[in-house]
Amino acid sequence: MSAGEGSGKQLLQTVQAIDRIFKARSVAVVGVSSDPAKLGYMTLESILKGGYDGRVYPVNPRGGELLGLKVYKSLSQLPGRPDLVVILVPARFVPGVLREAAGQGIPGAVILSAGFREAGRADLEEEIAAIARETGLRFAGPNIQGINYLPNKLCAMFFPVITTRGPLAVVAQSGSVTAALSEWAAGEGLGISAAINLGNQTDLCEADYLEYFSTDENTGAVALYLEGIKNGRRFLEAAARATLRKPVAVLKAGRSETGRLAASSHTGSLAGRHEVFSGACRQFGLINAGSLDTLYDYARGLAALKEPRGNRVLSISTSGGMGTLAADEAGAEGLVLPPLPDGLVREIQSLGISPLAHLANPIDLGYVPSEGFKPVVLLADKYEAADIILLNLGDPMPGMPEIAVELAGRIKAALAVSYAGGGEEEKKGRPAMMAAGIPVFSSPERAIRGIGAAVRATRFRRERQAGEGAYSLSLTDLPLRDKAAESRLITEPEAVQYLKRYNIPYPEHGLARSAEEAVKIAAGTGYPVVLKIVSPDVAHKSDAGGVITGLETPSQVREAYDRILARVLAAVPGASIEGVLVCRQAPQGLEVIVGALEDEVFGPAIMFGLGGIFTEVFQDVSFRIAPLMPFDAAEMIRETKAYPLLRGIRGQTPCDIQALEQLLLAVSRLVMEHREIKELDLNPVRVFKEGLLVLDARMGVFVGMGLV
Amino acid sequence: MSAGEGSGKQLLQTVQAIDRIFKARSVAVVGVSSDPAKLGYMTLESILKGGYDGRVYPVNPRGGELLGLKVYKSLSQLPGRPDLVVILVPARFVPGVLREAAGQGIPGAVILSAGFREAGRADLEEEIAAIARETGLRFAGPNIQGINYLPNKLCAMFFPVITTRGPLAVVAQSGSVTAALSEWAAGEGLGISAAINLGNQTDLCEADYLEYFSTDENTGAVALYLEGIKNGRRFLEAAARATLRKPVAVLKAGRSETGRLAASSHTGSLAGRHEVFSGACRQFGLINAGSLDTLYDYARGLAALKEPRGNRVLSISTSGGMGTLAADEAGAEGLVLPPLPDGLVREIQSLGISPLAHLANPIDLGYVPSEGFKPVVLLADKYEAADIILLNLGDPMPGMPEIAVELAGRIKAALAVSYAGGGEEEKKGRPAMMAAGIPVFSSPERAIRGIGAAVRATRFRRERQAGEGAYSLSLTDLPLRDKAAESRLITEPEAVQYLKRYNIPYPEHGLARSAEEAVKIAAGTGYPVVLKIVSPDVAHKSDAGGVITGLETPSQVREAYDRILARVLAAVPGASIEGVLVCRQAPQGLEVIVGALEDEVFGPAIMFGLGGIFTEVFQDVSFRIAPLMPFDAAEMIRETKAYPLLRGIRGQTPCDIQALEQLLLAVSRLVMEHREIKELDLNPVRVFKEGLLVLDARMGVFVGMGLV
Repeated sequence: MSAGEGSGKQLLQTVQAIDRIFKARSVAVVGVSSDPAKLGYMTLESILKGGYDGRVYPVNPRGGELLGLKVYKSLSQLPGRPDLVVILVPARFVPGVLREAAGQGIPGAVILSAGFREAGRADLEEEIAAIARETGLRFAGPNIQGINYLPNKLCAMFFPVITTRGPLAVVAQSGSVTAALSEWAAGEGLGISAAINLGNQTDLCEADYLEYFSTDENTGAVALYLEGIKNGRRFLEAAARATLRKPVAVLKAGRSETGRLAASSHTGSLAGRHEVFSGACRQFGLINAGSLDTLYDYARGLAALKEPRGNRVLSISTSGGMGTLAADEAGAEGLVLPPLPDGLVREIQSLGISPLAHLANPIDLGYVPSEGFKPVVLLADKYEAADIILLNLGDPMPGMPEIAVELAGRIKAALAVSYAGGGEEEKKGRPAMMAAGIPVFSSPERAIRGIGAAVRATRFRRERQAGEGAYSLSLTDLPLRDKAAESRLITEPEAVQYLKRYNIPYPEHGLARSAEEAVKIAAGTGYPVVLKIVSPDVAHKSDAGGVITGLETPSQVREAYDRILARVLAAVPGASIEGVLVCRQAPQGLEVIVGALEDEVFGPAIMFGLGGIFTEVFQDVSFRIAPLMPFDAAEMIRETKAYPLLRGIRGQTPCDIQALEQLLLAVSRLVMEHREIKELDLNPVRVFKEGLLVLDARMGVFVGMGLV
Repeated sequence: MSAGEGSGKQLLQTVQAIDRIFKARSVAVVGVSSDPAKLGYMTLESILKGGYDGRVYPVNPRGGELLGLKVYKSLSQLPGRPDLVVILVPARFVPGVLREAAGQGIPGAVILSAGFREAGRADLEEEIAAIARETGLRFAGPNIQGINYLPNKLCAMFFPVITTRGPLAVVAQSGSVTAALSEWAAGEGLGISAAINLGNQTDLCEADYLEYFSTDENTGAVALYLEGIKNGRRFLEAAARATLRKPVAVLKAGRSETGRLAASSHTGSLAGRHEVFSGACRQFGLINAGSLDTLYDYARGLAALKEPRGNRVLSISTSGGMGTLAADEAGAEGLVLPPLPDGLVREIQSLGISPLAHLANPIDLGYVPSEGFKPVVLLADKYEAADIILLNLGDPMPGMPEIAVELAGRIKAALAVSYAGGGEEEKKGRPAMMAAGIPVFSSPERAIRGIGAAVRATRFRRERQAGEGAYSLSLTDLPLRDKAAESRLITEPEAVQYLKRYNIPYPEHGLARSAEEAVKIAAGTGYPVVLKIVSPDVAHKSDAGGVITGLETPSQVREAYDRILARVLAAVPGASIEGVLVCRQAPQGLEVIVGALEDEVFGPAIMFGLGGIFTEVFQDVSFRIAPLMPFDAAEMIRETKAYPLLRGIRGQTPCDIQALEQLLLAVSRLVMEHREIKELDLNPVRVFKEGLLVLDARMGVFVGMGLV
């Protein structure tokens, strides 16, 4: 499936196909069973328990009756054509059922059956893919738990049966994660709009569901759990559109693989795929969680919190402890607890609520009943003291759900609730507020996480919607490489040829094939100079003694030339030597790394980090997917911890950040237009008060593809 | 209260006093009320609901009957002398009740009443403190929710009434946090041994309870929530003893104050108090949580997990997703998921459990019933494949509680359970396992956190118990300073006098009062030299132009001398100049910072970090409380991210880490023996392959205390 396929007409057709599946008004369930332990029984039971009010046609060659319904012997014997067929037969029978369904004009299927690619039967999987392509029938699965679309009360999922309808759509690779997120949302009264797990994604895939739910009027936010990504570029394309419409929280498993995926080049060793994914999330507005709990916290905040105007939070509590815990977490989520306006403090004081009230943010009201919160919230809102008001409950608060619901309707600020330490009142009160569209969390820190997610998602949406040049992920056909494709390092003069084409500044230089030629070149570039070996057989120039810096005179250059050759040949006996690069030595400046790599999932990605050993030690790097937009380049520099160094702290000279942004954009163009590049390391890049210079370029290319 | 007071006989008396309170066999409740909304009613009701089987004497001047009990008009009218008096009368009446109780020989009190120091009545608080000192009656509170000691079924706490007994003792500054942790533990079936909140800690304080619960046979682990710490040194002393007996998890609020507490010196600006606290936790084995949820996860793991032999975890799941999430979190908690022994894989394969099983760690068994786990766990244990086996459930698992309990009794490895995505079976199954002493978590990551805590606590205990020189916090009387105490910077030559006494290496140097004298000194130290201004009026030498480096000749020294004076006088007009320090310039080396500061809570603390602007940008510093033991010095160096730089990565020369450890120990002795020191910054310290040199020393001392 090529990257461009997701656009235009085809995209619309896919969204409509999913819509027909979720909103089917009649369903055939093929492969029902009378054994309650079998999925063929459980799934039919789920549909009934879910309250589906369309027609249900169980199908099994044996016929008979099941759960009060007539069982049909085959699809052809149904009294009417169903909108959807849910398939539970063994894998080898699935192609037949699918063909029969397509032949009857049934537009969609949900295939729960396992036993395809994951069980060594890629042939069966290709067969059902071909049926979809040929007939136009679209399907979810195979190898899934099923689908649950609550606005249609259609729970065609063997487990769990969730009927608490709410704003959250759950899309997860794993059935267990689908179940856990759905159960949590239902148990707390938040509810879900839909749940689906991804399985083999033979036809419909994560990008399609993301596209669908971002346009679904019954969904307020999407929680996404991913393990692999089927088509990285299409996924990003869908994400870029989706996050401008609806907030999306995502958790991607595989953080811990980073180490194992250490590639040969320096950039690669830092990157791993997860850092590329994290960069992509920032770039396309996906709210990236680090654990299942945080994914749920983010999802709760995104699904239920009213769009916050900004990032200012006011915590109001009867517990000093709960307030402090909220304040402690705020910074990590990019939130602030602003001081209270004097007028507000005076007005609250005049209410005489409690002699022990502590009237700073976080506000501790002392021990007051629920009613005591109301005037404080209304006053705070009148003063626009915050963008989000957190009712940070730490005691049993009878009557609070009603008050919270009333307040949510009356105030301009967004309203969130943390309820902990409230015993039976807590258990009773939380679902009621959640059901009323107020996100309720089980602890102050979790509340802050949910609020933080909503603030970030809203900010992203507003900034991107307001941006002059909207984001354009110009996705021409970019076949991602086989990760096993062979590659080789090219020499630095070859790499410099690429840089030149993109006006990437590299020191004055020349390639010498004798000591005298080196002296001549140095005379042209000016002293001091650096000498570097040029050999396709020397991967690590410095380690092999192939670099000598600080040469000030012709005699030093002559001596260094001979020394380099001797050292390199001692280190790499028989190395083919193409010559010695003579470069004008650059002035002092801050060193950074700029890199690019071909990510297995997303294709070309760009890296930025502070240079030298510090990059390795502090892992302070940022990634974005190419092509970069100017704001991507700006953001990826600013999000590193090292950014203050570039701006110039403690009397350091500020660096030319604009030049660095231009370099990142140039590297992005370079790798987008030269698909033979597998990896590129500009390390170090020395940045000056004005301008910069790439001091070393290391490039790996795929074998068999033409160079510049 | 002085730091030494906690030791010996007095310590034993305190533990016995708390024991008498918790294990009281008869309780007078003074200030009962017939209004169910009043604490005087709620507390009496809690005692009855809690199932207390000792005698209960409600006291109220009005007499009568309440909740089926006779109400006595005063303490003096009770038919017998109670072991404990619980006090709920208004603050102004508390001293009277306390005196009456002491007069009758009642040994302990729990004072719930508020209205003391926190309400501006420090006098009342001093009065009750004096009564305790004079009479020997010990008390908890005032201004608390109460105490709950389940082995005695004594819930003298107005809220909540927790009756699910288990291994966890909850000690929290905040009543809401006490309630939240207790409710969570009870709701999940873990249960608690005791709950107490700290309030004003006028008599008994956090250190006392920590001491008590670490020796309480009914408590397996302690969860501690702190806001301030009443007496830092006593707390550490108690913690040092407690963590060798029982695991202790702690959450300290106030992380976010770090920034606000930025002190004037560079070290201070990085330190904040929370980093000092975190260092103290590592030093004394407290398992330090960053949020309320994590505190609970840690507490669950510490309270219920069998002592793990090591840090190797095997995850066994029916869900690939849940297994991956556990693996992802393991690294952050210091855990590893080792590969499976070949023999084990073969034996599991021969069981023929599921064709879709993925037999690597994390193991995904495919969809198997609970019974399918049993042989796999037993085989894994036979092969000693892991120190902890995590049953990582992601599906409904009927029968699992029974199997888990059986397995826990049969295997050598510790057993933990994560149960998520299991619907009704999950809700039903979790408490049963928890009650059986198997920690159950709601997600894989939370399970890994709890396991990580248990592994760290066990490792700490074993290492310290096995250590040759046991930890000795030689706590002589060290009155902590008034944080407002005035201090001043001393000049570098004065600071160097301190360094000399402790053989801390500083470059050869001399103080010049003329350019010629500077040249003479330079001839003695040898070139190149550095010149530095010496003036009590110049706080930031470099900023004022008061430092010139790299001087190679007498004429350069002469010129530099005059230039320094001119620049400093231009920058700080009228500055009193004591001269110019001439120092032999040190060779190249890695720069680090070593510092000390007088922490408000813990007194002298030592800091270590990578030097220069990187310390500030990456906040990569470590703290310990003085006096340091040799292993503290070693650990605080090794726990920084920069440690690989010191060891020498990427062809860098390794640094003399032993010399650095010696420096840290010397600085520790210096500040312990010179209590006039408020802050000390050795920045930079240049570390060589052999040895090191302090290149700059900055010291602040408290005004009015004698110098060396």
